[in-house]
Amino acid sequence: MTAERPDLDALMEGFDAGRIGALARAISWFENGHAQAGEVHAHAWPRIGKAWRTGVTGPPGAGKSTLVNALTGHWQQLGRRTALLAVDPSSPLSGGALLGDRVRMDREEVEKVFVRSMASRGSLGGLSIAAGAAADLIDAFGFEELVLETVGVGQAEVDIASAADTTIVVLTPASGDGVQAMKAGLMEVADLFVVNKADTAGAPLLQNELEGMLELRAAGAAQPRVLTTIALRGEGIAELAAAIEQHRAASLADGSLARRRKERALARVKRLVVEGLRTQLWADEPTRARAEAALLGGARPDAVAAELVRQLFGRRGGA
Amino acid sequence: MTAERPDLDALMEGFDAGRIGALARAISWFENGHAQAGEVHAHAWPRIGKAWRTGVTGPPGAGKSTLVNALTGHWQQLGRRTALLAVDPSSPLSGGALLGDRVRMDREEVEKVFVRSMASRGSLGGLSIAAGAAADLIDAFGFEELVLETVGVGQAEVDIASAADTTIVVLTPASGDGVQAMKAGLMEVADLFVVNKADTAGAPLLQNELEGMLELRAAGAAQPRVLTTIALRGEGIAELAAAIEQHRAASLADGSLARRRKERALARVKRLVVEGLRTQLWADEPTRARAEAALLGGARPDAVAAELVRQLFGRRGGA
Repeated sequence: MTAERPDLDALMEGFDAGRIGALARAISWFENGHAQAGEVHAHAWPRIGKAWRTGVTGPPGAGKSTLVNALTGHWQQLGRRTALLAVDPSSPLSGGALLGDRVRMDREEVEKVFVRSMASRGSLGGLSIAAGAAADLIDAFGFEELVLETVGVGQAEVDIASAADTTIVVLTPASGDGVQAMKAGLMEVADLFVVNKADTAGAPLLQNELEGMLELRAAGAAQPRVLTTIALRGEGIAELAAAIEQHRAASLADGSLARRRKERALARVKRLVVEGLRTQLWADEPTRARAEAALLGGARPDAVAAELVRQLFGRRGGA
Repeated sequence: MTAERPDLDALMEGFDAGRIGALARAISWFENGHAQAGEVHAHAWPRIGKAWRTGVTGPPGAGKSTLVNALTGHWQQLGRRTALLAVDPSSPLSGGALLGDRVRMDREEVEKVFVRSMASRGSLGGLSIAAGAAADLIDAFGFEELVLETVGVGQAEVDIASAADTTIVVLTPASGDGVQAMKAGLMEVADLFVVNKADTAGAPLLQNELEGMLELRAAGAAQPRVLTTIALRGEGIAELAAAIEQHRAASLADGSLARRRKERALARVKRLVVEGLRTQLWADEPTRARAEAALLGGARPDAVAAELVRQLFGRRGGA
């Protein structure tokens, strides 16, 4: 906090002056676990809350990247400051497709969209935390539209994409039907469904299936709409942007945005506490020694863990 | 523990009698978070430690399934009781390939290999925990060879596969070169490298590259060997089994097996404590209320989390 302070000051100064390089570097600090990343976040924190965060998730092959390119291009053409944060929890070995897709972003009409990819370097919990911080930084920097795109639909992807103000689930007849989406917990997080590649066989059936399942849900709750797009040709993109705008207006009007942002903050707190425990549990030497002794004595790991959890929670209320 | 006790008793009785259906059901209990799963584990616990656990990981496309089928078939033909636990942390939506691959297991010579697939249904931490318990159950049931196979090489996969007595990393020239493997942390966990599809272009180069990187490591440490296979034709499988046997003998002789099993137990304790925190943190109403109040007052989630971690750890030492 002393030797490296000049770096931090320069970064914050650049950030405040609106230099995109400073934003990119600040995100890297989070990605790499830089010791002063937290201070950058604290610096940016008072200015967050202005960007609208649209999360996009869905199975591989649904055409998410194409859809996101079209959507961000649409906003950019309307003159809105637009950013894309693409998060890939898969490993460096199986990843790569995401960055490859981004080459498409170099088309003239979207060249000013700020695009940033993040990949998992350590724990998935760590990636969610870094991605959340990156979204906050992009927000505080002054972007108006922020798309959070994830590859695939594992739990980490759903966690990241659903930490948005509007969550879009993209499906195609080929990539996964409605029943599968329900199994993966996507029905619960979606504010909007998009049936992409709407010109392929099975698209109307998928749309009907989704609408049927949505009708089965509690009648009182706000029903997600099901839209259709052919992202490759830009069809349905303006309608999608309008639906996001409608969801935004409704969320502001009925107080659900405030609730949602509170839940998002609580989820972040929990993730950070869990991550803190993960890194600090064995750093406490007496705790580790006691656990080792119990295991050597033949205790089951599950029993040792239960005792530790009891200690952690039991004593918290006492002081 | 009272109403459902008959189920538990029947399950444990079937397990002790060596009925494979009871083993399968016990694993399902872990997968589904059954309330009495822990009691089954406690029941089986005194009998674990006899199976040799071979973890197999590597990028998609490296031919892991084919290799694992050949290896388990080899052991089965030698009359060893052999089991395969295939773990897929990817979601139900993108998954499926793994189960499809298992159809190959129906060939006559391997039909008695016990095969079980597990997929992620909730958190990845939860899957690691369930997979660890399933491995313990298979071990206690009396299997001699247990292969833990994972799809892909994300952090969760590496965690699961490296929780083995011998960890094998499978690579091919096409699926990921040595430098990539190093990046993904695979160099650190491998006891044996297998260059599969050894008849394809680039295989000798990959082998040289791996051996070169291994030479750079500390001279004192035991060096992982690099083997070559053409799993599809069964070539190199007997040599691989022999190398696993060698590693087993060496691990027993130099005490590294005991160290490794202790680390595995500690890792399980940590995972369970982290998972316990994840499920219980907000269940404690005063804690949640305090966090909400702090967030409403404008505190950053990161600051609220830091305070919570301080409380959890600070008070633990006091009582």
